[in-house]
Amino acid sequence: MTYTQTIRVRYGEVDAQGVVFNAHYLAYLDDVSDTWLRTFDGNFEETGWEIMLRRADLTWHGPAGVHDDLVVTAEVVRWGTTSFDMAFEVRVDDRLVLTATVYYVGVSVGDHVPMPPPQAVRAHLGG
Amino acid sequence: MTYTQTIRVRYGEVDAQGVVFNAHYLAYLDDVSDTWLRTFDGNFEETGWEIMLRRADLTWHGPAGVHDDLVVTAEVVRWGTTSFDMAFEVRVDDRLVLTATVYYVGVSVGDHVPMPPPQAVRAHLGG
Amino acid sequence: MTYTQTIRVRYGEVDAQGVVFNAHYLAYLDDVSDTWLRTFDGNFEETGWEIMLRRADLTWHGPAGVHDDLVVTAEVVRWGTTSFDMAFEVRVDDRLVLTATVYYVGVSVGDHVPMPPPQAVRAHLGG
Amino acid sequence: MTYTQTIRVRYGEVDAQGVVFNAHYLAYLDDVSDTWLRTFDGNFEETGWEIMLRRADLTWHGPAGVHDDLVVTAEVVRWGTTSFDMAFEVRVDDRLVLTATVYYVGVSVGDHVPMPPPQAVRAHLGG
Repeated sequence: MTYTQTIRVRYGEVDAQGVVFNAHYLAYLDDVSDTWLRTFDGNFEETGWEIMLRRADLTWHGPAGVHDDLVVTAEVVRWGTTSFDMAFEVRVDDRLVLTATVYYVGVSVGDHVPMPPPQAVRAHLGG
Repeated sequence: MTYTQTIRVRYGEVDAQGVVFNAHYLAYLDDVSDTWLRTFDGNFEETGWEIMLRRADLTWHGPAGVHDDLVVTAEVVRWGTTSFDMAFEVRVDDRLVLTATVYYVGVSVGDHVPMPPPQAVRAHLGG
Repeated sequence: MTYTQTIRVRYGEVDAQGVVFNAHYLAYLDDVSDTWLRTFDGNFEETGWEIMLRRADLTWHGPAGVHDDLVVTAEVVRWGTTSFDMAFEVRVDDRLVLTATVYYVGVSVGDHVPMPPPQAVRAHLGG
Repeated sequence: MTYTQTIRVRYGEVDAQGVVFNAHYLAYLDDVSDTWLRTFDGNFEETGWEIMLRRADLTWHGPAGVHDDLVVTAEVVRWGTTSFDMAFEVRVDDRLVLTATVYYVGVSVGDHVPMPPPQAVRAHLGG
């Protein structure tokens, strides 16, 4: 199961080299995983569960520029008890721009103690 | 009474035109007023008072570029009961880059009800 | 003639107060005017004309939070020879969040000399 | 040889969880490597050489919050012909917040063709 979201690059996200500044990619990936979770067909906010970043590995394959439409595909590629890895691919048309793996830990809202995802949320992410 | 802070422009804050992207100026001004308040010789966090933006008027006089040192000067130019206006000037060397006035409202932390500034904080800002 | 664009607030654009950090509003307005220009039914990049910010006046009427859909409406409310004022209204549902006026100057690409907008671009913006 | 820079967290860089939003860390690391290069005792801009990100691996060990001073230490841990790896450690006081390795490729300014670093620049980075 994969999730796909298109993100249009904003003018102010492009740097003096004319390409998307590297830090914005982490913000894009964050937006994609967050949006995927919020499309959960339940009340996500009431689950008492949320995610935190533990690790992120990003590899750039080419640049993206102003007004490019970034097509971001996400997939959970590993499930642990409380953690999981989400793999991302970012493309502009057929051209690969970025691949990344983000290691998330599920935690309880508020005190941030590691906590397994609610079963329905895990199923929503394909687990 | 004025407060001065120097902000070095980061590479990623410059856009494809080679100049600081406009939205970053609001972040710089926010950092300056916030830093000014935190230099209060008391425990600012325990005052129960904080500020919110109500209005911001910005005028650009020229560009700033990567690695420029922005010298930002702030001064409270109007005191109301719960609100005040802070005027800012941003320069690179002797060249004027931006002038701005930001209208802040003092509020109680948490419920955000308008609240006069603690006298010692107001004195810290020159009022 | 007005232009309307919806912008979904990203998680990372919300600050510790749980509301959209003020500087992001300038980025949103920039994206709206830029997007409006790029919908020009011609080759905008080949006109040799672009815009620069000269002044921005923003008034906040209420907060917006994470995942809110900001509906931004833009309209040119004054035409000069080389400059124009664009007025913006930002709403979440029927609730007004921000009103703003941005004063743009049209310039030639590259040397940034003030330049009247191409007639077709001006007509595209309702002028 | 290591390079150390202190970065004060700005209020607007902290998210609704009260911690620095993850994407800002990439911006901090970028600023540190960029600043290190600009302290080169020569005219860096005239070398015709610059760097691009190829890969970034980040591991978070704990949160940082508003007004924390991030002490960032950088060191080149691998030299290739045209590329090199820079390792970073980010601390608040003695507490480790982030470790990261960024793989940079040196390129010629303008056409972005891989290019070995000028010897003096490499020496400046300890290579």
